[in-house]
Amino acid sequence: MNRDLSYIRQDFTKEELDENKLSQHPVTQFKLWLNDAIDNKELEPTAMTLSTVSPKGIPSGRIVLLKKVDAEEGFRFFTNYESKKGLHLKENNYAALNFFWPGLERQVRIEGTIEKILEAESDEYFKSRPKDSQVGATISPQSQVINSREELESWFEDVQNEKKELSRPVNWGGYTLRPFEIEFWQGRAGRLHDRIRYTLTDGSWLKERLAP
Amino acid sequence: MNRDLSYIRQDFTKEELDENKLSQHPVTQFKLWLNDAIDNKELEPTAMTLSTVSPKGIPSGRIVLLKKVDAEEGFRFFTNYESKKGLHLKENNYAALNFFWPGLERQVRIEGTIEKILEAESDEYFKSRPKDSQVGATISPQSQVINSREELESWFEDVQNEKKELSRPVNWGGYTLRPFEIEFWQGRAGRLHDRIRYTLTDGSWLKERLAP
Repeated sequence: MNRDLSYIRQDFTKEELDENKLSQHPVTQFKLWLNDAIDNKELEPTAMTLSTVSPKGIPSGRIVLLKKVDAEEGFRFFTNYESKKGLHLKENNYAALNFFWPGLERQVRIEGTIEKILEAESDEYFKSRPKDSQVGATISPQSQVINSREELESWFEDVQNEKKELSRPVNWGGYTLRPFEIEFWQGRAGRLHDRIRYTLTDGSWLKERLAP
Repeated sequence: MNRDLSYIRQDFTKEELDENKLSQHPVTQFKLWLNDAIDNKELEPTAMTLSTVSPKGIPSGRIVLLKKVDAEEGFRFFTNYESKKGLHLKENNYAALNFFWPGLERQVRIEGTIEKILEAESDEYFKSRPKDSQVGATISPQSQVINSREELESWFEDVQNEKKELSRPVNWGGYTLRPFEIEFWQGRAGRLHDRIRYTLTDGSWLKERLAP
């Protein structure tokens, strides 16, 4: 079926963004919007598209889930350090995050640098995960080619049937993104969207309005 | 309000992905999934996160809407050629697209190269847009800092009140992404997601399963 996509278009009319009413610190503002997304029953409110860059300069995007956020430390998520994103970040630790909450007609765009969190903190989070997720992280050579679904499931069952408690694999853990730029985007009628960008400048956050 | 995000976790159980049942051509498969997303009433089914890279190697992500897709030409969208993404693409035409349809527990990840479409095709699409969108594209210096919302609205009104038909600004038009890699991701229980990646190899598409 070939549908004409060019007519799929929504006018955004729910809210507006006033730079004078936004928080001084963008992470404070981000938390308000994240809470709105959760309260508004957005599907997967913590889902964000993480963009990284390969050594050849090719960008790559994938969904990861935000697990913690604060002004001191930034935006935390967990993954396999040997996955494609892990290999990208070893060579170039610049990254971007994009949150899109269509029910609220909102988007947040974040750019920053990424580093690994403390091993003890990765251990702690690993322990808090359901057993199946622990097994999955342990057995899966993330982003590598595998022969079949059956192969993966047999590895899973082998480990799942072991009685002992699993410890965190050394190649699995947390990253945190420390932002230097955060933009808040609110859809508006006639494509005249509101865009307010915070830029970290000499240790404080500069707030500016951008043309849509 | 500080919420503990680390417990926000859904188990994905809706569907599974069998590499032997997927289309030979990834764009054919993509169209099937896009139609499913539209039929499933996903909010903004054509929304995709476009990742580009700055000359300094910093990635950037933002939502754009897919306006056309086919196997010959790739994935088409429209924007201001002088926007941040436009400036990025002038220097590095590698880009990535990420579709996320949470209601279906599906994701599509695409990597490729980008080029401008023919001017006549941009003209045609510009003509098909509602008047307000035409005015918005004409007056907005996209991604540039502006003084206030009021400034933007006064530019808008000046042009909106003109009686003559608007023609496409030279700095506004379409791009198309020609893919060399497309991955289909279906969420599964216990984080054992299905991932099938197509890679363009010597002119044909190689299909492989990746570890989740």
